[in-house]
This record gives sequence, C-alpha cells and structure tokens, in this order.
Amino acid sequence: MFRRVYLDNSATTQVDERVLEAMLPYMTEIYGNASSIHLFGQQARSAVDKARHQVAQLLNSRPNEVIFTSGGTESNNLAIRGLCLANQHHGKHIIISAIEHPAVASVCEDLEKEGFETTRLPVYENGVVRLNDVENAIRDDTILISVMVANNEIGTLQPVEEIGRLVKIRRSNGQKIWFHTDAVQAAGKETVDVEAIGCDLLSISGHKIHAPKGIGALYVRRGTRLRSQNIGGRQERGIRAGTESVPSIVALGTAAELAIQDISHSTTETKGRRDRLERMILEQIPNSQINGDLERRLPNITNISFADVEGEALLINLDMHGIAVSTGSACSSGSIEPSPVIKALGVSDIQARSAIRFSLGRFNTDDDVSRLLDVLPNAVENIRSLSK
Amino acid sequence: MFRRVYLDNSATTQVDERVLEAMLPYMTEIYGNASSIHLFGQQARSAVDKARHQVAQLLNSRPNEVIFTSGGTESNNLAIRGLCLANQHHGKHIIISAIEHPAVASVCEDLEKEGFETTRLPVYENGVVRLNDVENAIRDDTILISVMVANNEIGTLQPVEEIGRLVKIRRSNGQKIWFHTDAVQAAGKETVDVEAIGCDLLSISGHKIHAPKGIGALYVRRGTRLRSQNIGGRQERGIRAGTESVPSIVALGTAAELAIQDISHSTTETKGRRDRLERMILEQIPNSQINGDLERRLPNITNISFADVEGEALLINLDMHGIAVSTGSACSSGSIEPSPVIKALGVSDIQARSAIRFSLGRFNTDDDVSRLLDVLPNAVENIRSLSK
Repeated sequence: MFRRVYLDNSATTQVDERVLEAMLPYMTEIYGNASSIHLFGQQARSAVDKARHQVAQLLNSRPNEVIFTSGGTESNNLAIRGLCLANQHHGKHIIISAIEHPAVASVCEDLEKEGFETTRLPVYENGVVRLNDVENAIRDDTILISVMVANNEIGTLQPVEEIGRLVKIRRSNGQKIWFHTDAVQAAGKETVDVEAIGCDLLSISGHKIHAPKGIGALYVRRGTRLRSQNIGGRQERGIRAGTESVPSIVALGTAAELAIQDISHSTTETKGRRDRLERMILEQIPNSQINGDLERRLPNITNISFADVEGEALLINLDMHGIAVSTGSACSSGSIEPSPVIKALGVSDIQARSAIRFSLGRFNTDDDVSRLLDVLPNAVENIRSLSK
Repeated sequence: MFRRVYLDNSATTQVDERVLEAMLPYMTEIYGNASSIHLFGQQARSAVDKARHQVAQLLNSRPNEVIFTSGGTESNNLAIRGLCLANQHHGKHIIISAIEHPAVASVCEDLEKEGFETTRLPVYENGVVRLNDVENAIRDDTILISVMVANNEIGTLQPVEEIGRLVKIRRSNGQKIWFHTDAVQAAGKETVDVEAIGCDLLSISGHKIHAPKGIGALYVRRGTRLRSQNIGGRQERGIRAGTESVPSIVALGTAAELAIQDISHSTTETKGRRDRLERMILEQIPNSQINGDLERRLPNITNISFADVEGEALLINLDMHGIAVSTGSACSSGSIEPSPVIKALGVSDIQARSAIRFSLGRFNTDDDVSRLLDVLPNAVENIRSLSK
C-alpha cells in the first residue's frame, strides 16, 4: 500500500499531538463542569480561562471578548443573525462579498425573508473585493458588512483592514454599523489582529488549526449587542448557553498558541511547498490555470483549473492513488452545481467544474508534494484522453 | 491528601476510558472531514454513520432521525424554537412543566416576545406533573408540549408516555401538535424509548453519559419540520449545518452503546448506593428531608434539604473535604435565587436554599458513599451551630 497524502487541509486538519496531550486530562481527570462551584468545577474553570487568554492572544483581543462556540458555522451564524436581529431597528441592509462561506451567505438569504436586504460585492477575475465597491455599497441603513479575511477555496485575501477603516469613518459620523469577518481559513496562516482589522466580530474554527472538530470561537468586541442562538444558561457571558466544552476549549487554546508560533513556519515552509507544487503543475500540465490572485492569498492554498477535466473525476482518480484534494468546500460536497466561488471569478461553468483545491498544512512534507507531482500529470492526461 | 469524591454526576460525568479509546483515532489518524469525497472523508463518514446507529439504538429510533448537536442546550433550543417557528401558522400555544431545564423554559419565555403563549404546569409537592393538568391545558392552538423525562435536580420521572398518548389522540383528531421531551438526565439511567414515549423530539447530552462535553443529539421524528439554527451546509440532513464533530460523535455513539449495557447496572448498584446514602442521612442527620417523589425518580439522584443549613455553605464545607455535590443545576450556578425546581414543590425559600443534590454515576463506589457519610453529619452540625 502506498503512503497516503493529505492535501485537503482547508477542509479539516489532523489534530496536533500537543493539542491532544493538553486536552486529554480534561476528559478523565479534571472532568468537572466549569460552572460548578466545587474544586472539580474550579479546575475546569481555570482551564477555560487560560484557553480564552490563548485565543485572545492569537486575535489580539481581550479575553472576555472571546466567546467559545461549536465551530466556524455556529460562529458565523451567531455573528450575522445575532447582530442583525439585535440591531435591526438601526437598519436592515447588509453587505457581503460574492464569495463568502455558505454559513455567512445562507444566513443573509434567510434574513432577506425577514425584510433584510443584501448587497453582494463582486470579486472580479482575481477573487478580491474592491474597496471602491464597498464604499459605494454602504447606505445609511447598512448595519453590517461581512467580508472574509481569506477565501476558503482560492485563498485570496480581502482588504479587511481598509473595510475596517471605512466602517470606522461611518461610525464616527454617527451611523450604527458593524463589521464581521470570517477568519476561519486565515487564522494560523496569516496574522489575524482584530485591532488592525478594526472588526467587531470575527469567526474562527478549531479544526482548521489542528484542534478537533466541534469547537470554534467568535470574537465579539465589547459593547456589541447580539441576539443569542442558544439560551438557558449563563455561560460565555450569557451570549452562548450550554455546558462549557472544556477539553475542546483547552484544545482550541493550545492550538491557538501553536498557531502563533507557526505563522512564520507557514509563510515560509508551507508557502515554499505550495509554490513548488504550483510551479511544477503549471510546467508539467498543459492548459492548467490558477484561479484567483497570485499575490494576495494565503500561503497554503492553490486552486487550479485543468481544461477539459471534470474536477470530481480528477479528485476520485487522485483518491485512488491515496491523495486527498477537493473540488470546493467540504460543506457543499455532493452539490452538482459548479463552485459559486470559482463562478464569481467570471469563468465559465466548464472552467469552474475543472477546479481543484490543493491545501497544505503543518504536517505536509516535501515528499507529499513530490508524490502528488508523480501522479497528477498522468491522472490529468488519462481523464483528458477519455473525454476526447 | 484525602481521596476526592465526585457526587455531582448530574452536572457532568467523567469520560469513560472506553469512550476515549474509541474516539482517539479520529483525532490524529482518521481525521478527514466527513463531508469530503475522498477516503479520509469516507472513513470519517462511516464512523459517523455507525455512531448514529448506536444512538438510534439507545433511543429505539431510526438512525436518520438522530441529529447530532453540540449538546443538550442546543438540542433543547433547536427543538423548541425550531418547532415553534416552523409551525407557528398552526398555533402559538406551548405547554411545559414548571420544572423544565432553563434551556427549555428560557426559550419559551423568549418566544413569548414573538406572540407565543406558554402554560406552565404545576408539579405539586412530589415534583411530578399531573396528567389531568396536561389534558386541561391543551387548547386548539397548542402546537407543542415539552415535558422532561426526568428532572435534573430532584430526578422525578414525569408521565411522558401518558402525555405522548394524549398528543396522539389530539393528532388523530386533526390537531397539529408535537411533543418534545428533554431526556438529558434520564438517558442511560432509565430506558428512553421514543416509540414508547410517543414523542416527536427528544434531547440527549453526551457529557451526562460519560462522553465528553460539547456533543449531544436531538431525535427528530421523520416528517417533523424544524427551523434550523445553524445553516450553511448540508450536514445532518440540512437540519444542523457545520462540519461533523467526528471524534465527539464517535464518543457519543460509544457512550450510547455502553449506556444500553449499563442501564441494569444503574438501576441496581447505583440505586443501592443512593438508597444507602439517603437512608443513612435521614437516620443520622435530624431535620433532613428528601425533595420530590420517593418512588417516581431516577436511581442515581437524591435531593435533600437540611433545615437551618444554607445549601451553598454546606457545598463549600464538603468541597473542603474533597467531596463534590451541588445546590442546583450547574447552569444556574452563581445565581442568588433559590432553585426554581425546589420552589415549584411549594416549599419555602428557606427550605429551597437548604437543598443539596447528590448524584451518583458509573464510577462511584461504596467507599464514596461511606466517605460522604463520614463527613456530612459533622458538616451539617457545624453549620447549624454557627447559625444559632
């Protein structure tokens, strides 16, 4: 059996052994409910507090601005629906980009049934929102802008700091307007600093940064009012009721700490591998083309369209060689529609259907890239010859 | 240092080593996203499928009627708000008991702001809802009854099968009415059978049955329409979006399987310990009194009021001896109000404030009970002498 190669780190990542080690004692030894008054509870409580500090450090926020959730989807839902429903008396207009994650985009669609209006900003050929478009889209009744830090399929970085400044100017003129950004893909790969961005809400997910699935966080700038989704307990400052998920919270805290250490590693080693992978593919495989901006993007993702190749066929072919990649976000797997992100770049359905995302992570090696390069050219060639 | 004794298993439980062993491979080896098409994803998918079968077996449901959530609070919120918002065109009246968990009661209060009306059924001295009251409370515009299987503070079992039958009769007469039951405390201690109960929705939580915190499930009878809380992905039949929390789901499945095996253990060994603990307390400590029905209750809980003793003072005193108990639900810890559950029994504020919940679990021993009995009489006596 050949060695398996995982190049789908944007879908999810392997739990880091150090994260696992940190969380394990909270399963079988220090297993108290963090809301209990006794020692079992207080030990759990200090672990939660520590993790909140660690996540705050990753985001450059205050610890009490970090709300633990069950993951990125909940963070995005709570941010968008929570902010809009709590503040709708100030206006019912939302601005998002055309390439937001479905956990943002669907919530906006849903709010439209309740009288909200959404403006979706184009991203053009390079997959990046233009600041001018944001500026023009802001109305007096705009209460929320939600633009992601980095896209999950093509990795393009959005001008979030500039949007943050626009929002600040509007706010200093008396407008009630807030800024949410989805940092699920960016966290751990790029510096994500809530002060530099100037956002009021920011989502992260544990399992994209080597913590387990089922844990995430929402940064909520102090003073930001949200309507809660889960109520019936005083946990998380009353914003998110439910027994604190202590082992997973400890895991997220540890993963955040490791991510801080790892950001330079990512931007050098991982970027080096990604760049080699990309360069070799473009050299060896004719009619292959990178989707999205070549400069403004995460160091670990490349999204490539192979002309005349059905992406899913290529994915399955690579899978038979033990190599895991994806055609789009895992959340929309099984969809027969071409990726809306790639479509938003203005390409044809055919090109969109031929896109493959390769996403690297902390545990990939040079050998992983070599193994892919050994297999991919033939795989593409085979599929092309079959479709002729 | 003395051995620590954990008698707060209704707040949360220790993760069973067998549960931990089952979930670990899904952290570091089989770490794919269950929605990914490749082998990493498919391995995760089969683990989720297996766990869904295991939970279905515990509840006697079909596997596709099990929706994984982040825990009991989310299950209850999704059930109550989800059912009411999706079906409000049929009516806006809800019936609950006066002793539902805050994750049920608060959602109803919240819905009242949107025009819903809630009837809260009394539970009388014994802490049990009367069927006659349920019958009288049902109106033509009642769309939901939510009565828990067993209470979390006093353990009393509610007549859920009889309520289920009432709902069925109403439904056969053409009324659109649904039945939710919170089985968070009952699961694993009593048989919880959705067919016998005749409920449409049923909530369970992992960390009450020796799985980790942060995972739960909602049974949703086929055909029951819910408005989702987390959207933006096709997971959990579109009812609950978000990357499947594979390791925790595997843990819940395993815990469910162990719970099936353990139910007889609970009703014999655990009940034996609880009964001894209770009997000895009543014998040795004057003016102590059990709250709630002595027969209709879970085998692992006893809730006792000690006259002239502030419950929290006793809790802290026991904690200094390494013994963990609680005064009410952990979710309302820090509240200065006396427990609404004990108050609902018609007792005075003073008696309610003197209540202590002792809750046993799989890992308690006879020695744990002996240790408590060594310490408790003096602790009560000391507090009483101080308050004189």
